[in-house]
Amino acid sequence: MSNKKYAIGIDFGTESGRAALVDISNGQEVTTAVYAYSNGVIDEKLPGTNIKLEPDWALQDPNDYIEVFKTTVPAVLKESGVDPADVVGLGIDFTACTMLPTKADGTPLCFLPEWRNNPHAWVKLWKHHAAQPEANRLNEIAGESIFSELLDKYGRKISSEWFVPKAWQILNEAPEVYDAAEKLIEAADWVVWQLTGEEKRNSCTAGYKAMWSKKDGFPPSEFFRLLDPRLENIVDEKMSRDIYPLGAKAGGLTAQAADWTGLLPGTAVAVANVDAHVAVPVGTVTTPGRMVIIMGTSNCHMVLGDEEHLVPGICGYVEDGIVPNLIGYEAGQSCVGDHFAWFVENCVPTAYQQEADSRGLDIHELLAEKAAQLKPGESGLLALDWWNGNRSVLVDVDLTGMLLGATLATKPEEIYRALIEATAYGTRMIVETFEEYGVPVEEIVTTGGLPNKNPLLMQIYADVTGRPLYIASNVQGGAVGSAMHGAVAAGKAAGGFDSIVEASQKMASLRAEHYTPQPAAKAVYDQLYAEYVTLHDYFGRGGNNVMKRLKAMKAEIRAS
Amino acid sequence: MSNKKYAIGIDFGTESGRAALVDISNGQEVTTAVYAYSNGVIDEKLPGTNIKLEPDWALQDPNDYIEVFKTTVPAVLKESGVDPADVVGLGIDFTACTMLPTKADGTPLCFLPEWRNNPHAWVKLWKHHAAQPEANRLNEIAGESIFSELLDKYGRKISSEWFVPKAWQILNEAPEVYDAAEKLIEAADWVVWQLTGEEKRNSCTAGYKAMWSKKDGFPPSEFFRLLDPRLENIVDEKMSRDIYPLGAKAGGLTAQAADWTGLLPGTAVAVANVDAHVAVPVGTVTTPGRMVIIMGTSNCHMVLGDEEHLVPGICGYVEDGIVPNLIGYEAGQSCVGDHFAWFVENCVPTAYQQEADSRGLDIHELLAEKAAQLKPGESGLLALDWWNGNRSVLVDVDLTGMLLGATLATKPEEIYRALIEATAYGTRMIVETFEEYGVPVEEIVTTGGLPNKNPLLMQIYADVTGRPLYIASNVQGGAVGSAMHGAVAAGKAAGGFDSIVEASQKMASLRAEHYTPQPAAKAVYDQLYAEYVTLHDYFGRGGNNVMKRLKAMKAEIRAS
Repeated sequence: MSNKKYAIGIDFGTESGRAALVDISNGQEVTTAVYAYSNGVIDEKLPGTNIKLEPDWALQDPNDYIEVFKTTVPAVLKESGVDPADVVGLGIDFTACTMLPTKADGTPLCFLPEWRNNPHAWVKLWKHHAAQPEANRLNEIAGESIFSELLDKYGRKISSEWFVPKAWQILNEAPEVYDAAEKLIEAADWVVWQLTGEEKRNSCTAGYKAMWSKKDGFPPSEFFRLLDPRLENIVDEKMSRDIYPLGAKAGGLTAQAADWTGLLPGTAVAVANVDAHVAVPVGTVTTPGRMVIIMGTSNCHMVLGDEEHLVPGICGYVEDGIVPNLIGYEAGQSCVGDHFAWFVENCVPTAYQQEADSRGLDIHELLAEKAAQLKPGESGLLALDWWNGNRSVLVDVDLTGMLLGATLATKPEEIYRALIEATAYGTRMIVETFEEYGVPVEEIVTTGGLPNKNPLLMQIYADVTGRPLYIASNVQGGAVGSAMHGAVAAGKAAGGFDSIVEASQKMASLRAEHYTPQPAAKAVYDQLYAEYVTLHDYFGRGGNNVMKRLKAMKAEIRAS
Repeated sequence: MSNKKYAIGIDFGTESGRAALVDISNGQEVTTAVYAYSNGVIDEKLPGTNIKLEPDWALQDPNDYIEVFKTTVPAVLKESGVDPADVVGLGIDFTACTMLPTKADGTPLCFLPEWRNNPHAWVKLWKHHAAQPEANRLNEIAGESIFSELLDKYGRKISSEWFVPKAWQILNEAPEVYDAAEKLIEAADWVVWQLTGEEKRNSCTAGYKAMWSKKDGFPPSEFFRLLDPRLENIVDEKMSRDIYPLGAKAGGLTAQAADWTGLLPGTAVAVANVDAHVAVPVGTVTTPGRMVIIMGTSNCHMVLGDEEHLVPGICGYVEDGIVPNLIGYEAGQSCVGDHFAWFVENCVPTAYQQEADSRGLDIHELLAEKAAQLKPGESGLLALDWWNGNRSVLVDVDLTGMLLGATLATKPEEIYRALIEATAYGTRMIVETFEEYGVPVEEIVTTGGLPNKNPLLMQIYADVTGRPLYIASNVQGGAVGSAMHGAVAAGKAAGGFDSIVEASQKMASLRAEHYTPQPAAKAVYDQLYAEYVTLHDYFGRGGNNVMKRLKAMKAEIRAS
């Protein structure tokens, strides 16, 4: 046993689980290991059967999660040579809402032979979209009822990805599974239960995905009865009203879990967290005023507040949702990296690909290089970043992309830059909406896949938002953030920390390089953003619903 | 001398002149010959000097036109073996406004050593755009004066390409050239003068390019004085008030011109015509109700009317401008084939180019094949066809292109089809504007480069406009149309025809294949066109001038 203390964080992603053994004195990942789920994302047939899944289904196998514990933790311990006694705690983060039905003892229904061939007995992954009818119905009923204000803090729309629609889909399509399910639980909470033997549910998934709030708890049973009388007592029958804040200790490792992992029995385990939200303290943010943006295929914007404000069009706000005793606000853009990927796949001419190949550049690098030669406003182009709908602040999946200002002299790099700028305007719209409704955003910390890849994008975001942009030292925030929470669960007395604030101060940092708004560029972007806002409101707030009409027409024609 | 009679037509294009020897019993081109101008389009340096031209300049050398006569006519006679005595007449058509300063005897100033080094002494080609300041000034002064209504029949905008701005530019920048010019004349009329020894100016260029009308003649001298006192007497000093309708005989070939061409002296020569307008009777159209569209890099729409109607936003209307005693209406779209060429050059991914290459297809063929699989409305896309501004009916060069409805699933062929559809909506807007203001359009005859190349485009135009689309048998209309006019100039007594109506009946025809509107497609396109109109008016008629603001910003940034 040495002086150094460590924690382990495990990030459960869509395709794999990734563990990191982290030095809690500085947040360095000492060793990491990945386990790719053997059954991956199940979206065609149930494993080992010929049972086909409907479109929009996406399931997982809970056994894969256990395999992550069994393989990755021993691997990081072995490779690092760290003594298990020096691992003070363990935390996990998960995709969400990813949920499953279990027996009272936590046994997943899909582990039982009598249920194994029923798709509803498996884990419904976050991107399982087959509960859209239930989501629509919920929004309709709730919107017209005395419970209408329940929707206010979720941009007035509960997503089909969330807990209640998914549970309701089980009830509607497989009432026998619903009845057999003694628990309906987030996979995040389920894996913690497997480690500790204790069912301790976390405030993050409860708040952002299951309509729970610290102040009011879950919606009342009258609300659920209104949806469907059979749902009336879902919370008491199949969920739990005991919700724990992030960083709380769920329990100690059971003997069995110690056996799986090679850690000591009793090692502190934190309640579960969500992959996005756990990145916030990794971005050094544990107080109000600084926004964290996870930039990848999409953007997820999180900011903390002292007070509860109703901010229209955000994805949700949850007290204890990110950091205990603060309000965690979340917003999002559904198409960022995906946007540039679409462009590269569909719109870049052969001559550019050849130039990139001959110079040994990635095509994105070539486009960014050319786009960086342009001054703001020089292309004359303006786009609305809605290729995948608008998540915030319009909350409308039926909006579509628009590009304006093209001439016969327009070049691919100009369009590429216009698409980057459009996503920056979308972020500015979110930032300004937060501020307008009382949630300050003074600086931005970025993390995720894009910040280290695309300096042009970062400078444009700084210039457009008029705020400095920083980059988290650890841009794969999940595992380190989970390790932080594991160290907090252990507590200072056991060599960890007493709060996530303290853990973040020790274990998180920002890169020295950052991006400062350039006044000249900002002045031009202020003008362009004003044009963006006009078009945003014209097409997005009912001035001209042409996008929705075209999309409806397209759906009708494709169906005919 | 045989029974068969022939006429020769010569089409003076931008890069070359093309002669056709045509059988006047059926309009067949017996033989053709092309002469590429040795000095081509002069836009960098004056030939034989180091004198650089400013941007936007485009000149030609009148000697190249004479070379066309000397080379192509002997060539078509020789190759055909036709007896010159069987050639009843000759006609020409030209780009316009393409104009030059000459001495009183027709000698171009640029042929004289003392003027040869002055760029203003040369021919200003139609696409010489350096007279924009004069055009702007003209529109401003005229628009605010008692002569404001002079602009009405030109969409309220005189183009920088037209006669008065070009003449005024000479006066402003080279007053000594203006003073030395005893004539300012369309090159079209000048070449006829060289053939016949007689200065006989035509009604088409006078009407469409020099503000002349059959009813009122040229604008009064007060108008020109208002522009610039030195211009007051330009018409009497340097132009001519004797304007001849199309098909009129300008004269007979001089001995010298007979020597150049190998034709007989005295052979009838028609007054000049314009390349676009001469295509109308080649499209079998000599009466009201049927529109001719020349479809190429841009679209030119022409239709005849019995009555004078003020149609807003068209390029011009001229009595005798296309067919004697009828009103010739002209409108245009500035970006059609150019649009698709831009798309192919800038937006088509490598995989598509590879597929086209491996299947031996032109990339346009591949895109059209894929786009043809789509049903109307299926892409969910809608575009405004303004990549090169809008010529009709908005008459606004500062408008730019827009594409709306894109998603992450949008494919290149969907965008390609949306661009075709956008140009079809633009044509429908022109057609409906004509009809709204009293000029009927029941059918459409197409000619030019696109109709035989792109059946998808033709069907879309039929479906969108709701009108049958025909194709002229001769889609390179210029030379045959000029030969028709040559035969009319000769007259029936000399083996030709007494009217263009008669000539067109004998010499012009349509292809049997044509395109009929499909009711189901038309119904969808009616809905999409309604959306197009809303966006057209929003962005084009002042609802949101974002396109102009972006373009102004771009110009400012590029200039800084």
